[in-house]
Order: sequence, then C-alpha cells, then structure tokens
Amino acid sequence: MYTPRVPKLWNETIGAHRRAVHDAILDTTAALVAEHGLASVTMSQIAEATGIGRATLYKYFADVEAILVAWHERHIAGHLKHLAAVRDQAGDAGARLEAVLEAFALIAHEHPTTELSALLHRGEHVARAQQHLRDFIRDLVAEGAKAGAFRDDVAPDELAQYCLHALTAAGSLPSKAAVRRLVAVTLAGLRPTR
Amino acid sequence: MYTPRVPKLWNETIGAHRRAVHDAILDTTAALVAEHGLASVTMSQIAEATGIGRATLYKYFADVEAILVAWHERHIAGHLKHLAAVRDQAGDAGARLEAVLEAFALIAHEHPTTELSALLHRGEHVARAQQHLRDFIRDLVAEGAKAGAFRDDVAPDELAQYCLHALTAAGSLPSKAAVRRLVAVTLAGLRPTR
Repeated sequence: MYTPRVPKLWNETIGAHRRAVHDAILDTTAALVAEHGLASVTMSQIAEATGIGRATLYKYFADVEAILVAWHERHIAGHLKHLAAVRDQAGDAGARLEAVLEAFALIAHEHPTTELSALLHRGEHVARAQQHLRDFIRDLVAEGAKAGAFRDDVAPDELAQYCLHALTAAGSLPSKAAVRRLVAVTLAGLRPTR
Repeated sequence: MYTPRVPKLWNETIGAHRRAVHDAILDTTAALVAEHGLASVTMSQIAEATGIGRATLYKYFADVEAILVAWHERHIAGHLKHLAAVRDQAGDAGARLEAVLEAFALIAHEHPTTELSALLHRGEHVARAQQHLRDFIRDLVAEGAKAGAFRDDVAPDELAQYCLHALTAAGSLPSKAAVRRLVAVTLAGLRPTR
C-alpha cells in the first residue's frame, strides 16, 4: 500500500494555519462576548464573524464555553509569561520580587472582577494557574529570604499567599499611584523582623 | 367607634413570637440547604421542617432565596457585632487593631468560600456589610496612625483595603497558627517606615 509522505514543511504550514484559525476564533469570541454579553453569543455568530463555516468551528470547539475557557487560558498564560519576563529583567532577589509584585498588582488593577471572570475563575485551568503563580512567587520569596532581603520566620509559601491576596486589593484601587503604595505596604510586611 | 387598646405586653409578646418564628425559619433553611444542597430545598419542606403552615411561611418570605439572604444578613451582622466586641475589649490603638484583624482572619479561616457563599456574596447586603467593615478597620488604622503605632504615609482607607484583602488568605491556610502568622505579617506592613 502506498502511504504518501507529507513533507515536513507542509506539516508546519498546516500547524500554523490551525493555530491561526484557533486564535482567530478566540479573539472573535472574546470581542462578541464583550459587546453582546455572554448569554446572547451563539456558535453560528462566532463562525460567521470569524469567517469560517459552522462545521469547521465545531471541529475546533464543542461550545461557546469551551472557546471562552481556551481564551481565558491563553490570557492567563500571557500574564504568567509577562511576570516571568519582568522577573528576568530585574536585579537582585529583593528587586525581582518587587518588580513581579508590582506587575501582578497592575494586572489585578486593570482586570477587575466581572461576571464573566467570576464564571471562568471556577475552571480547573484557573486552579492550575493559581498554583503556578503561587509557586513562582514562593520561589522568589525563598530566594530573597536566603539573601536576607525578606523575613525567614514564616514559610515562603505562606508569605506568597499573603502577597497574592494583599495585592488583589489593587482591583478596587482608584489609581496606579495607589497600586504602587499597596505594593510598598505589602513588601513592608515581608521585611526581616528585628 | 371603639378601638381596642392592645396592651403593651401583648405587643411585645407578638413581636417576640414573630422574631422566634423568623429565626426558626432561617435556622431550618440553613440546615436543610447544608444537608440537601441549594437546588433541592423547597418552601414546602422548609414549612414542614419549621413546624408551620406553608401559608404562614409565605407571610414571612417570598421564596427560598429571600430566606437565605436574610439568614446571611443575620450571619454577617453577628460577625460585625463580634468584631466590635473584640475591639472594645482590647487596650491601646495598636492592640485593638491587632485583636480585630486576628478575629477577622479567624472568621475567614473558618468560612472558606463555597458555592452558596459565592451566590450570596453577590447580594447588595454584602456590599453594605463590606463597606461597613472597611470603615470599621479604617477608623482603627487612623486611630493607630495618630498614636504613632502605624504608618501615616498611606491613607487609612487604602491600608484598610490592604488588611482585609491580605487576611482573606486565611481561608486557604491549614491551621490557626498559620492564620496568626498571617496576621503578624499583615500588621508588619502597617508599621511606620523610618
């Protein structure tokens, strides 16, 4: 039996094409939901707005909720990537955590909780991302505690939870200046005790 | 025309009776929902378990949700009363805030977020209670800042938001000892900067 060998380049092209369609579906759905609200967006509307057939859309996603979860996963992954980049730019352990906490607080400030986020935040992918974020902050705290920049009388994991919860206050603060003050106050809680 | 004068004692008795029935409805409903889940509890079940007729129940409440909101309001009012009592027992401004924050953190620790609380927390009565709590903490912070126990370079209202958010971490901590460490770390963020 003759099995055609698909050239590698062709595979890559198909992969890139699928990725582009996938991303277009996510972007279109997010825009439709933002404009019309979650309840009124249908798979047909999404297919039409994306410029693909309904049958094609169903090859990618089973329903609107699955698209939104994928969109949210990509969104969160973008935030985590941003925080990692911020970490890698800053100097010593203390400066690294400070830069990351400020970046996180600004994300919280710019993404106040909405009905949609409340819905999406119940998903399993969010629990995974939160654990990832907690581990990420915990490692920075541990590194800073070892260097003497932060207290070592409380476990880094507990301090990470303290930081992340304290900084969610940024969602209800009125300005970026207030967010920076919140970061300073939160960091003050991490300083070594005498 | 003859208008019967209802003796004062009689009015008080009716008031007490209505209060007792009202409270019994709340307690019974909370117990039924805890046992069977929110979706499966009906007004008929509640009337039967409370030992009153359905018609009487409807004189008090229009539906199950209204009962749960009333139950939740009473529950929150109990917490706020407890926090006020804790405040009034402690010594100076610093000790008062510390005692109140620890009491609040223990409440958060003992009441992790559930499906029911997520539903109830959307209510307007919760926004009112949160504002009340924020004002309550803000006043304690302001009093302590004036006495030199806390920093005065950040507004008391922002510090109150910081405290309340940081302490919600108590909901996912494993022990009361961890909760007390969280309170100590949160308070360290409030200390005056040199």
